[in-house]
This record gives sequence, C-alpha cells and structure tokens, in this order.
Amino acid sequence: MACIGRNGHNPWVVYRVGIINVTGFAGMEAARLLWNHPLAKLTAITGRSLAGQRLGDAFPHLAVYGDTPITAEIEGEVDLVMSALPTAASAEACLPFVRQGIPVIDIAADFRLKDPAAFKEWFGQPHAAPELLASAVYGLPELNREAIRGARLVANPGCYPAASILALAPAVAAGLVAGTFIVDAKSGISGAGRGSGGSFGYSEVNEDVSAYKIGKHNHQPEIAQELAALREAPAPKVTFVPHLVPMTRGIHATCYAPLVRGVTDAEVMAIYRDFYADAPFTRVSAKPPHTKHTLGNNMCLVHPAIDERNGMLVAIGVLDNLVKGAAGQAIENMNLMLGLPQTSGLDLPAVYP
Amino acid sequence: MACIGRNGHNPWVVYRVGIINVTGFAGMEAARLLWNHPLAKLTAITGRSLAGQRLGDAFPHLAVYGDTPITAEIEGEVDLVMSALPTAASAEACLPFVRQGIPVIDIAADFRLKDPAAFKEWFGQPHAAPELLASAVYGLPELNREAIRGARLVANPGCYPAASILALAPAVAAGLVAGTFIVDAKSGISGAGRGSGGSFGYSEVNEDVSAYKIGKHNHQPEIAQELAALREAPAPKVTFVPHLVPMTRGIHATCYAPLVRGVTDAEVMAIYRDFYADAPFTRVSAKPPHTKHTLGNNMCLVHPAIDERNGMLVAIGVLDNLVKGAAGQAIENMNLMLGLPQTSGLDLPAVYP
Amino acid sequence: MACIGRNGHNPWVVYRVGIINVTGFAGMEAARLLWNHPLAKLTAITGRSLAGQRLGDAFPHLAVYGDTPITAEIEGEVDLVMSALPTAASAEACLPFVRQGIPVIDIAADFRLKDPAAFKEWFGQPHAAPELLASAVYGLPELNREAIRGARLVANPGCYPAASILALAPAVAAGLVAGTFIVDAKSGISGAGRGSGGSFGYSEVNEDVSAYKIGKHNHQPEIAQELAALREAPAPKVTFVPHLVPMTRGIHATCYAPLVRGVTDAEVMAIYRDFYADAPFTRVSAKPPHTKHTLGNNMCLVHPAIDERNGMLVAIGVLDNLVKGAAGQAIENMNLMLGLPQTSGLDLPAVYP
Amino acid sequence: MACIGRNGHNPWVVYRVGIINVTGFAGMEAARLLWNHPLAKLTAITGRSLAGQRLGDAFPHLAVYGDTPITAEIEGEVDLVMSALPTAASAEACLPFVRQGIPVIDIAADFRLKDPAAFKEWFGQPHAAPELLASAVYGLPELNREAIRGARLVANPGCYPAASILALAPAVAAGLVAGTFIVDAKSGISGAGRGSGGSFGYSEVNEDVSAYKIGKHNHQPEIAQELAALREAPAPKVTFVPHLVPMTRGIHATCYAPLVRGVTDAEVMAIYRDFYADAPFTRVSAKPPHTKHTLGNNMCLVHPAIDERNGMLVAIGVLDNLVKGAAGQAIENMNLMLGLPQTSGLDLPAVYP
Repeated sequence: MACIGRNGHNPWVVYRVGIINVTGFAGMEAARLLWNHPLAKLTAITGRSLAGQRLGDAFPHLAVYGDTPITAEIEGEVDLVMSALPTAASAEACLPFVRQGIPVIDIAADFRLKDPAAFKEWFGQPHAAPELLASAVYGLPELNREAIRGARLVANPGCYPAASILALAPAVAAGLVAGTFIVDAKSGISGAGRGSGGSFGYSEVNEDVSAYKIGKHNHQPEIAQELAALREAPAPKVTFVPHLVPMTRGIHATCYAPLVRGVTDAEVMAIYRDFYADAPFTRVSAKPPHTKHTLGNNMCLVHPAIDERNGMLVAIGVLDNLVKGAAGQAIENMNLMLGLPQTSGLDLPAVYP
Repeated sequence: MACIGRNGHNPWVVYRVGIINVTGFAGMEAARLLWNHPLAKLTAITGRSLAGQRLGDAFPHLAVYGDTPITAEIEGEVDLVMSALPTAASAEACLPFVRQGIPVIDIAADFRLKDPAAFKEWFGQPHAAPELLASAVYGLPELNREAIRGARLVANPGCYPAASILALAPAVAAGLVAGTFIVDAKSGISGAGRGSGGSFGYSEVNEDVSAYKIGKHNHQPEIAQELAALREAPAPKVTFVPHLVPMTRGIHATCYAPLVRGVTDAEVMAIYRDFYADAPFTRVSAKPPHTKHTLGNNMCLVHPAIDERNGMLVAIGVLDNLVKGAAGQAIENMNLMLGLPQTSGLDLPAVYP
Repeated sequence: MACIGRNGHNPWVVYRVGIINVTGFAGMEAARLLWNHPLAKLTAITGRSLAGQRLGDAFPHLAVYGDTPITAEIEGEVDLVMSALPTAASAEACLPFVRQGIPVIDIAADFRLKDPAAFKEWFGQPHAAPELLASAVYGLPELNREAIRGARLVANPGCYPAASILALAPAVAAGLVAGTFIVDAKSGISGAGRGSGGSFGYSEVNEDVSAYKIGKHNHQPEIAQELAALREAPAPKVTFVPHLVPMTRGIHATCYAPLVRGVTDAEVMAIYRDFYADAPFTRVSAKPPHTKHTLGNNMCLVHPAIDERNGMLVAIGVLDNLVKGAAGQAIENMNLMLGLPQTSGLDLPAVYP
Repeated sequence: MACIGRNGHNPWVVYRVGIINVTGFAGMEAARLLWNHPLAKLTAITGRSLAGQRLGDAFPHLAVYGDTPITAEIEGEVDLVMSALPTAASAEACLPFVRQGIPVIDIAADFRLKDPAAFKEWFGQPHAAPELLASAVYGLPELNREAIRGARLVANPGCYPAASILALAPAVAAGLVAGTFIVDAKSGISGAGRGSGGSFGYSEVNEDVSAYKIGKHNHQPEIAQELAALREAPAPKVTFVPHLVPMTRGIHATCYAPLVRGVTDAEVMAIYRDFYADAPFTRVSAKPPHTKHTLGNNMCLVHPAIDERNGMLVAIGVLDNLVKGAAGQAIENMNLMLGLPQTSGLDLPAVYP
C-alpha cells in the first residue's frame, strides 16, 4: 500500500497518488502541491494530449519533477486517485477505481448533488452512476470531516460553493438567517480552465468585469443543498451570480442573508469563531479579507458583517480557486481519507504580494 | 457669454468652461473629454498643487492642450464651472459661483442627498450650505432631464449610484420589485483617486479582490433616495457593498431585487427598453454586459435578468466610473444646462480592447 | 467621390472609406477612430466570419454605428480602402482596388519591404505582386510625408518598427550613431491579435514577460531598411527582440546604438526636437515616457538618453500599437493621401489613467 | 547554537534565524520561505513600525506564524541574521552581528561593490564599513559557492544583477563574447518596494511600461564587476536599462553581447548546460523562458540564443525578484553558510498559472 521516499529525500513510508488529467489547471495544481507533501507521492499522472511527455517538460513550473512521465492511463499501483477531468468524463474515469475499492476524489462535479434528478436538471444529462451518489461524501471538511475520513468516494466541492458555503454555514447552522440568500461571487480567470481560448484571451478579459450564467450556474444547487443540510428548517433559497474579474486566481464570494433577529457584530464574530475553532484552513477575519492573502495556499478567510439598517448579514468567503477551491481541498480530503494529519503538505503561507 | 474657436479649428461660438481641481482623476478626465467638445472650451483650470504648471506638462496624456496654464483660482470669465474637489471642499468652492449665478456642476457628493440630516449621518459633518439642497438637481438625465435643463446647481451622481440606479430604475418605476435590494458593486481602482498611495499600490491591489465599507458607504443613501423618488410606494431598502477589483476603470453593479409578481425575461426587457427609449447613453443589453465595452465613453449598459426559481430580478449596470460615473456625466449635464445637444462631445465609441 | 454628412451632424462633404476585415483588432480600431473623423465616413466594412451582422451588435463598443452592416466584400463606391487582413491575404485583397486606381492603405506587411527577395526570406513565401513594391510608399509621415501625399498604395508600418524607427531616426539621420543597433521591444498582448487563443489566455499571460522570435521577427528587416534610407552610410545592423508584457495596448521600444562621437544630452535633445519640429504626432519627451500616456491616441513619445560611460545612445519610442502602430497611422496616411489636414480625426488626448 | 523543532512538528535540531526588517517585501518573503524550511526556524523578527504586533496579524498571508511577535531589535540568540533594510541602514544594522561573529546576509546593496570609491560614486555617500568589503562574499552560489560556504558576511545579489549575471556568465567565462554588453531588464512592480505610494499606484502603473534610471542604476556596476571577475580579459562594459512592467513579481533580463567568433545554437547550449550542470537553481531552457514559470520559487531560467546575422548573443535570464532575486537567494546562501544542503527549504515548484 505504500512506497519509499520522495526523490530519495524522505526516509519514510509514503502513499502513492495518481492524478487523472494533469493537463488542466486543477490537475497541475494538485501536482504542484503534492511535491511538498511529506507522506504522499505522485506516482501516476495521466493526460491524454500530453501522454509520452515528461511532466517537467510539459509544464516548466513543475520542472522539479524531472523525468516523471505523463501516461495515457494510470499505471502501476496507487493508494488513491484524484480525477481532474471535466464533469461526466470524470465519473466515467473514476468508476473503475471505485469498483476496485481504491479511494477516489472527484474534483469534477459528478458526485456533488445527491439527487440524480437535480443532476439531470442542471447538467443536462443523466448521471452516469446514480447508485454511487448515496455513499459519495461531499468533501468539505469543515462540515463533514468524520464522513470524509470513512469515505471511499469523495466529491470535491466546486470553487464557488467552497467559498460561499464556508461564508454562510455558521450563520445558517445557528439559525441566524433565513429566506432567500444572494451569493454574488467574483472569480479569477483560471476558473475558466486552461487554454480556454478566445473568450478568455488576455486582451478581452483584462480591464473587464462581467457576469455570466445568472441564476443558471450548476453551483447554485450545490450551495443550496449543503446549506440545507446544516439545520432542520425550510431550505434556504439561493440566487447565485458568478462574475469574472481580471486576475488569475482567487474567489471572493459575497453572500447576503436576511437576519431573523437582531445581532451585534461581536455576537456574530463569536458564532463564526466557535464554528471554525477546529478548522485548520478556515479563519475568521475581523476585517474584509483579500483574495490575495490566500494566493497559493489552502486557506479560506471568512468575514461576517451586519448591515444593521436592513437586518442583513453580509458574509464573505475568499480563497484560491485552484487550492482550497480545487486541488488543495482534494489533498486535504486525501489526508483525511488516508488517515494522515489533515494539514500534511498544506501548512503553507500564501504567496504575497 | 462665449468665445471663439478651439485652437482656431472651430469657427463657431463656444462656451467657456472652468474646472476646479483638474489634478484628480475626475478633473483630468473632464479636461480629456472637453478637448473634443465642439461647442465648449476649457478656459480655466485650477489645481493648487500644480498651479503655475502647464496642463500638457503636468499630464502628458493631455499634451494636446499645449501651454494652457493651471492656476490657483478660476481666472477670467466662464460660462459654467465644474468642481472636482473632494466632498466638503467642493461645496465651499462652488458657493461663490452659485451666488454669482454661474451654472455649477458639483462632481463631489455635497449636493446629492436632499436631507441635511442624512448628509450629517453619512458624512460625519454638517452640510456647508443646506439652503441650496432644495434647488440642487440630481444630475442623472435618464431620470431628471428636464429639471437639469433648468438647473443652476447640479449634483453629479456618484459612480456607484449611477450604475446601480440605472440598473434598477425601470423595474422600480414599473412597480415590479419591492423589499430590500442588494447592490453588490465592483469598481476599478481609479475610483480610489489619484496618488492614493500605499493601500492602492500596484503590488498590493493586483490579483486581489476585496470588499470595503460594508453597509457603510455614503453611496447607499444616494441610491435609496433616488430609487424612492421613482414611485409612490414604501421606500425600498438598499444594502450596498462596494468591492475593489484589479482594473483601472469600470464599475459593475449587480443589483438584486425581489419581484412582486411573475414576469418573463421578454417582458422585463420590454419594460427596460421602453424606459430608456430616449436615453442616448443608457443601452439595454440582451446579454450580461462587459465593463470594458464602456471604457472611455459615456455609455451605461444595463441588463435585467430573472432568476425564476427564486422570484428575483438581477439587474446589472456597467459604466466607466470616470466617464458616465463622473466627468462624462458632468459634460452631459453641462450640455443640458447650456441648451446644447445632450450628446455634444460625448458621441464616442468605447476603447476596446 | 464623396457623400454627405455623418449621422446628419456634419453638413459638409466627406470621403467614403472602406475597411477590409473589421474583425481583427486593427480593423476594429480603424472603425473606432473613423467614427469621429470630421471629413471621412466609414461606408463599407467587410469581415467574412461576421458578414450579415450589424457592426454595433458584433462589437458592443462600436454600438454608435447602429445598424451599419458588415458585408463579405466592399460594397458601393469608396474613395479609399484600408486592408486589415493578415499578410499575404491582404495583398490579394488590395490588388483589385489598386488596379482600379482607388487609394489603398495596407495595414499588413505585404508592401513594406522593398526587396522581394527579402520578403521571401522573412515571410517564407514569394510576394504576390512584386511589381507594386517600387511604387508603394512606406507610410511613416515623419519620414515620408510628401511621398505619402502622392501615393496610391501605402504600406502602413508595423507596430514595432513605428516605435523603433521613430526612436532612432533623428540620431541616424544626423550621423550620430553607427554599428549594430539593439532594439528591445515590449508589446501589449493585443499585438498578438484577436481571439489568439490558448497561448494568449489571460491566466497564462498575466503576470508574465517573455521574449519570442529572437532575431527572427519580420519587423527586423523593416526597421533596418527604413533606417538605412535615412543617410548615405553603411547600413546599420539591427538585432531585434520582441517581448510580450501583461498589458493590452502599448509598445515600448528601447533602442541601443553606439555613438560615433561624444554628445551631451542637451545636444541630442536639440537634434531630436529639430527633427520632429513639424511632426504633429511624435513628441520628444525630456523624461523616459510611459506607454500609458499614449493609450488610445495617435501619439508617439520619443526620448533619447546618453549612457556616457559607454558611449551609447539609448533611444526610446512608445506608442499605442493599435493606433500610431496600426489604425491611427492608417488614418493619418489617409488624411495625407486625400489631401486632408494631417491631424483630422486624430487630434485626441490619450485615455489616462 | 540551535533549537528544537518548528511548531513542535519537526523533531530535529534546527538553526535559529533572525530577520531585520520583516516589513518590506524581501523581509516578508524570507519569512514566507523560512516557514517550510526543515532545518531552520525564524526566531526573531524586527520591524520598527510594526514592533509589538504579531507577525500573523500584520501580514495575513503569514497567519501560519500565529503569535510570533515583531520586535524593535533582534531578541534572543540567533545563529544567523538576514537584513532586509534599505542600503546604508542595512550596513549599520549588520555591523554589530558581524562583530559578534554571527553569520550575516545583507539583502541590501551595502557589501556588493568591492571598491569603496565605486560605492560612493553610485550611491552618493561614503561606505559605512569599507574595512569589511574585502571579506564580504558576493552571494551568487552559481559563481561563488565555496566562498559562500566559508563566509561570515554575504552580500546578497541585487535582483537585476542575479538575472543578468546568470544569463551572461557562461558566455563570458568561455570567452565567447566581448565588448559592450546591453542589459535590458523588465521588472515587476514589487521591485519598487512596499507601500511605494503614488508613483506606483495601481491606476498609474497598470497598462504601462516605462524605463527609469537609464545608465544610472546602481545595479550597473554590480553586473560589470561580477562579469569582469569571470575571466582575465578586458572588463566588459555594461549599459543597463531597467524597466517597470505591470506585474507584481518577476524579472526578465534580456542581455545582448557581441560574439567574438561564430558559434551555433547547439554549441552555446552545451556551454551553458555545462556551466550550470551542478547548479540546482539555474536551469538552461531550450526556449525563451517565461517569468511566470518561476513565480514563487528560487529558480532562474536561462536561455541563450544567437542572432547569426549580426554576430550577437542574446542571453535571457528570468527569475522571481523576491525569491532568487532576494529572499530565496538569501536562504540558499544561509544553507551554504550553515553547512546545510543547498536546496533545503527551497525545493519548490513555481506557482502557475
């Protein structure tokens, strides 16, 4: 179940990890973060368009990997697999591993919605393996740590939902808010994926902000589902509007939720700090947080504020969409699934400025 | 009341305009836009820190102005004055001109709120000339064109309110929405002003999104006041949260307003297009608009969308904060006040990409 | 040969202009700039992929054009044609107009190099119409104004050469420098063209600088050819290295040329100011210029400096690659070819900040 | 001479490091990189303006440091000190430690130039401790690894010189080039330092390229001195022109050096690869490198190319100015001075995209 050493440096037993589709930004980022993991090693990497190339040649920022090859399929034994394929293709690629009992983390959206009908409604196609939905665990450790520890199949959260749910969860769980929530989210362009071509060309995207898929993005039901699970109460409604802003990494989710009673800023801060007291990667900030303070690391910064005049909670969550919003979250889930310390390989400052 | 020619090129009568404080971004931008105005000419320019310098030397992008001097006070006769000083200083500088009967446009916030008590609450100081508030006209021609035509003192709208009010006005006027509105606005950094120093240094602001003054920005009452004036009904509440995004120019206001009845996208589009049928600078877009499509010109692009699942109107307004959000709007108001065609000097494509 | 009025506003005779391929950035920009030309009107616009669409719909920043149609071929009579097609395709498209005696400006590279063998060497294919090369005029008015006035076919300069030649020309013409010149040029990403896809995606290009085509870019012989024409002397050698920097518009050419004798900064400044005394769009700056001070207008800022320790002239030229480096230059050439004032429609401040 | 464990995680002996002036970008970055050093621990941190604050509060991206205090002076015993103060102030702060025999790394420019007269010429003031210049070692391990191992005082290279020297050194050492070298360098804005205020405000710097201190930057003699030391031959002359480009991190040095004989690309590549065969942090790239491929890590990518037509070597060096150009280089030097593996704590992929 394990192998020896990373590059000969670490004299201990480490787990072997496979990444399916290293060629997208999430897969690449998982490779970047795994490099410094003390207890896990990337031993198999697929990427069909680049199969046969060496990882360090295909991606110069990963040159430390030297001659590690990219292959068409996962080769050799692995202790855990992460899939960074697009939704639908990902489910298909995960199934063989799930069936072999190998722990799987799906970074795509296939196993996030519990209800196959909702999947069909929002993704426009039937689910490939609805029988797995019941046992798949939504991989947000702040909410589901114990379930993730026992899971064989983890659905890694979407980048927008990770920020939004973490911003709202303490207030929802405490019964502070109810009604229709607004989630207005701003994302860096890497969320659109690698080589995303003309529409995301530098000249077009630079100096521009725009919204897209207003009320129609498939992260909307994901946010609603997870918030609803926090408290027995009428499920909150969520209106979700994503925006692209001219930066590479980062998500800033600004969430608006009507308060059901008067509270002070101090009371809300206390509720939030309690809720995340044991969460190593979600920190409650006393000031509006900056996405840049999370660039490159697995931190989510959360800030609740009260608009007293209008009885409105404004809760902000910021994170790096490729780390806590994708690959870092996957490694955090991996740590839990493999029984490792939750923070292994992720105990990193952000890159600033 | 007028002088001959701009640089000798235009053989007709033109109006003489003074700008108080050309050294900030709004003042500078007014100078840029006035250069190509066929019927008005910038004849007096103040800027205390730069008094004695030539405009074209102080600001190389305005080199076309050649040896036009910057002076400490408005010199010579002018037919209209624009003040681009900060709030409070601006009121003080405007008063002498108002008293002489010279038309004044205040680009600062001094004359926007009708209620002096509200001014004190949001700006933290008593108003300098409360007796003028009743006659000052809020300079958003889409709502107040006729009143602006007859005004001697126009309060130029704030950049955030211009985008937000234009996004919401047709729905409010039609009685489509009611309750608490959320205005989540994203601004380029030039909104923070010139030479705004450390906190807005490139290294800190680049690759960063952050919110500020949550529920506490003085544009919140301005938005609420103008929306309330559109219809006899309980005044809407507004929760306003501004954000800084890494671009120089542009505002994207995403506004959320609960619908009071079911409507279709087509019905809403028709209401919006009717409302702005005569507005030369507000265009209703069938798709989510891009701030960059307004860079450098006086256009506001508005897009209403319906989140049917939640009975929510999502109305977007985008504009260039220095043009339709400041200096261009001032010139549009100037045109109306001086009896010129509303679009004189402002009939420009945007600069794209 | 002419038509009446633009939008009914201008009561005078104007020239009819056709743009071949409005869909690229240079073509688009020509349309933007022509909008405000007092003596010319865009009456025919081609763009095969968008044929049948309205210009204002295809490009929202050009919405002022309303229902002007994009067609597959130039329709109706025109008084002048600009081609913004890629090199080779452009020559082919220009030929019919040249043969009809209609003035043509080729924004592509087809008619810049005088020597068909050089064209073949640098472009990898034979020239389509070598018989036209002798009569084609290189369209840099600072060097060739009178020839452009009489030309029927003008080769609009490349963006890099425009900045580089204008930076070096006064020193070369004065015989101040000789030997091998280094031209190290930095370009915004719009130089790579519209929809340039994966390699120029925002996430990849943002926060990145890189060089390309080192010593192999086809602008190298163009620079060398035009500098050689300035003085009877051994032709200077030019090593040209272009770089991409993360901005949309702008070129900064830093040129290094060995001095043949000692000179002071003041002497060099005087030589440069003399040389450009009559040039409306090239200004000699006493300080290192900023590309941003030319954003959106037709200005080139030039700055010569002396590194005394090493006997080296460092001459900088900056401009907006889409304006003085492409579409603005084309309109300046059009003005000269049609006998209009050189600055018609181009007398604009830059957009700053 | 050492203490136990980092945060209790690492059960081995580690060295205690002090950073003088953590509040600038270089000091901050040293703290960021030391966090993950397996054999060294940051135990003392000064920063007068922030003395009394906790590091993790002052800089949210360093929140992992928790309650580590910032003090006015280095407190407690340390095994090595890095100074990230400005030049001149840095020398003064380093002296007490040098006199105590504690190993010191000066990230400022005080101990780089060997000749006190040159220091006075380029820095405009006499040197504070000229008696130390002879024993100070220039801390570029690719050239001076053994000397650094034995040094008590290391002068950490400037960011521009690091990139430029590494780009040119193999060619100079091999005697391939001679004469006047041009170094045209492009830097991200973080090179200007933290809180650098108005001139480096986002709105002014974004979408802008400009040169500064043409032939007058104090990195020019540093580059010349180190290249001259590589080979007994007439010292090369260096014309150095730095530029600011709109990105936060990264330096791209494009160096031009006349070849003394004909060489092929392959021959040059072989010379470069040989030269850096043992250098863990300088990699020779077969293609023009991207600054972004080094963002956040200690790598320098070097690319030599030949412009055959002109007998010119074009050698490029790219790196992250805050890492290999400052704090990472300091840690690499620390590793050597303390007898640790050269790559300890620096074996990191870059952050991409």
